Amino acid sequence: MLDFDAILKPTLVLDEKAALQNIRRMAQKARASGVEFRPHFKTHQSAEIGAWFRDEGINRITVSSLDMAQYFATHGWKDITLAFSLNLRQLAGMNALAQHVRLGLLVESVAAIDALAKALTNPVDLWIKVDIGAQRTGIFWQDEESASLILQRALGSPLITPRGLLTHAGQTYAATSANRAAEIFSTTTNQLHGLRQSLVHRLNIQLQISVGDTPGCSASAAFSPADEIRPGNFVFYDAEQYLMGSCGWQDVAVALACPVVAVHSRRNEVVVYGGAIHLSKDYYIHRDTRLHGLVSLPAAESGQGSRAWRAPLPGAFVDRLSQEHGVLHVPAQSIEQIHPGDLVFLLPAHSCLTAQCMRRYLALDGRWIEMMP
Amino acid sequence: MLDFDAILKPTLVLDEKAALQNIRRMAQKARASGVEFRPHFKTHQSAEIGAWFRDEGINRITVSSLDMAQYFATHGWKDITLAFSLNLRQLAGMNALAQHVRLGLLVESVAAIDALAKALTNPVDLWIKVDIGAQRTGIFWQDEESASLILQRALGSPLITPRGLLTHAGQTYAATSANRAAEIFSTTTNQLHGLRQSLVHRLNIQLQISVGDTPGCSASAAFSPADEIRPGNFVFYDAEQYLMGSCGWQDVAVALACPVVAVHSRRNEVVVYGGAIHLSKDYYIHRDTRLHGLVSLPAAESGQGSRAWRAPLPGAFVDRLSQEHGVLHVPAQSIEQIHPGDLVFLLPAHSCLTAQCMRRYLALDGRWIEMMP
Repeated sequence: MLDFDAILKPTLVLDEKAALQNIRRMAQKARASGVEFRPHFKTHQSAEIGAWFRDEGINRITVSSLDMAQYFATHGWKDITLAFSLNLRQLAGMNALAQHVRLGLLVESVAAIDALAKALTNPVDLWIKVDIGAQRTGIFWQDEESASLILQRALGSPLITPRGLLTHAGQTYAATSANRAAEIFSTTTNQLHGLRQSLVHRLNIQLQISVGDTPGCSASAAFSPADEIRPGNFVFYDAEQYLMGSCGWQDVAVALACPVVAVHSRRNEVVVYGGAIHLSKDYYIHRDTRLHGLVSLPAAESGQGSRAWRAPLPGAFVDRLSQEHGVLHVPAQSIEQIHPGDLVFLLPAHSCLTAQCMRRYLALDGRWIEMMP
Repeated sequence: MLDFDAILKPTLVLDEKAALQNIRRMAQKARASGVEFRPHFKTHQSAEIGAWFRDEGINRITVSSLDMAQYFATHGWKDITLAFSLNLRQLAGMNALAQHVRLGLLVESVAAIDALAKALTNPVDLWIKVDIGAQRTGIFWQDEESASLILQRALGSPLITPRGLLTHAGQTYAATSANRAAEIFSTTTNQLHGLRQSLVHRLNIQLQISVGDTPGCSASAAFSPADEIRPGNFVFYDAEQYLMGSCGWQDVAVALACPVVAVHSRRNEVVVYGGAIHLSKDYYIHRDTRLHGLVSLPAAESGQGSRAWRAPLPGAFVDRLSQEHGVLHVPAQSIEQIHPGDLVFLLPAHSCLTAQCMRRYLALDGRWIEMMP
């Protein structure tokens, strides 16, 4: 049982049951839809939480850095996609890792595939990174010519196995409803499928489609014509996903417990010890309100397995953050319940970045769960 | 000498000479102005960098958390102000620390001073936290009544020594010029002085004034009627301080070296390995452009002690950040010089948060400088 009195400073509390349910739900949906589930581990970055996925029959994962790939490889993961456009300065490390694991790499230029082919000493899988409208990385999805060129170079290298087309439709994060996220998921997956069909016809090879982001995968009932999904954030969800309709507040599995240091009732503000270095400076804009998180009060103590925090306070949000301070907007009807020395729970705008800041989790049974160093 | 080829992933590079010069310049200005210099160590969080201040004759410091106070106490600092409104959940730790160091604490309510007086077992210094317009924490500067009440309670406790009035005029960070920052510094310091005079007259005690933020302290030639300044960011400065005129680009002492992973010339964008988890998600708005940092190219190799990066590329800036990706806007005339596999140097929007993310520095001589764990 979590001892609130032992929380003296900003602490990331993890509701293990909620996270397990999030994992189970997504794994079931993937199975029902007949797609591979290759969850992104950048959100939790924890070997222990990774093991919860293994218990659900998952043995393929996605990571966002070579360091993370190495960490999970040492914890027994054997099939890892490094979902980041190839960093040519880390080819030696990738080669070393590919000795032990089935390693998937992302390429988006002929120059990169040539450099890779030249440097490789071990077999790797290759995914073409496709830009499906997010305008971050990748070959534009209508640029069949470039995709074809890269695939041809890959086919010429004995150590490279072309696997398919991979995208991150990051624009789902700008969706304001689950329906809109599902629409974007469907449209972009079909666009990718169109590119696949052209390339399969042209080069006479098999190509898979790997997609997936939490808003799209949470909102969609099925994933065809994708072959693989790679959501990550869903393991914890967060205020953003709750507000856009990807999940209920009960599904948000992490909250930052923060001591209250000041209450300024006249301006409806509460100041907590808990700032940008704990929550990250990320924010979400919900109906013209820019917020760094939502605000909950501790649940009354009850039996083991109960929630640690209540439903978010209506109208309350994390308004401003400096290095160690958080300023919460709290409406008059709620602010009277909050006093210096109390704890409040902040549901982060973006749980991936909050976890990254905090580096470990306090589970509801009082146990610490560590992240990669 | 820094070996660029050994930088494989995002790395925070520290120009030690620039930092030393920043320290020396501020220390000299404080001496010339006859004020105490109690630098804020939240920016660098490093015992080794702290020692550079000691070499300049500084023996009083400011920190923003009890953990940081404990860390610097174990590294020999004996006079520490914990510049954060009293966290009632950490009184036991403060008591323990106050056995070994002269500890300054901040209070902004009668409830807090009463709780402190009741819990104290060792002597501490007390500063009244005053809100001089930043609207974060503190008693409003015109609220003489509350300040007087707290001071009276403090005077009644044998273990509490009232030191004075302390503020952080955070609104200087919104100044768009050094002149404006100096104006704000002068106005707010005089307002604080007015409050002091009233309280001194009323209670017949001595009260000091402690102020200081990097924009105000950089822009001001002298600090009277303040008794103490507490800037922190100036040790490294950053893109924000450069753009608002607090420093030259040569004074920015840290830059994040990042591998280039993609160049999208048609949309004037470069994608680097280096994102929100390295730079932090903080930003600065300069002339309607919202930027997470500025972009520099590596300096050509030359003798020891030379700079690692050049002047910021005109018109280039860090436009968007996701977890590990940075998307740079780079004008056509510069983008041709940048290729996948290259290194670029990003001058962070806010160096305090970038240092917090990165946890250690690579000095130009190739040595690692560690931060507190």
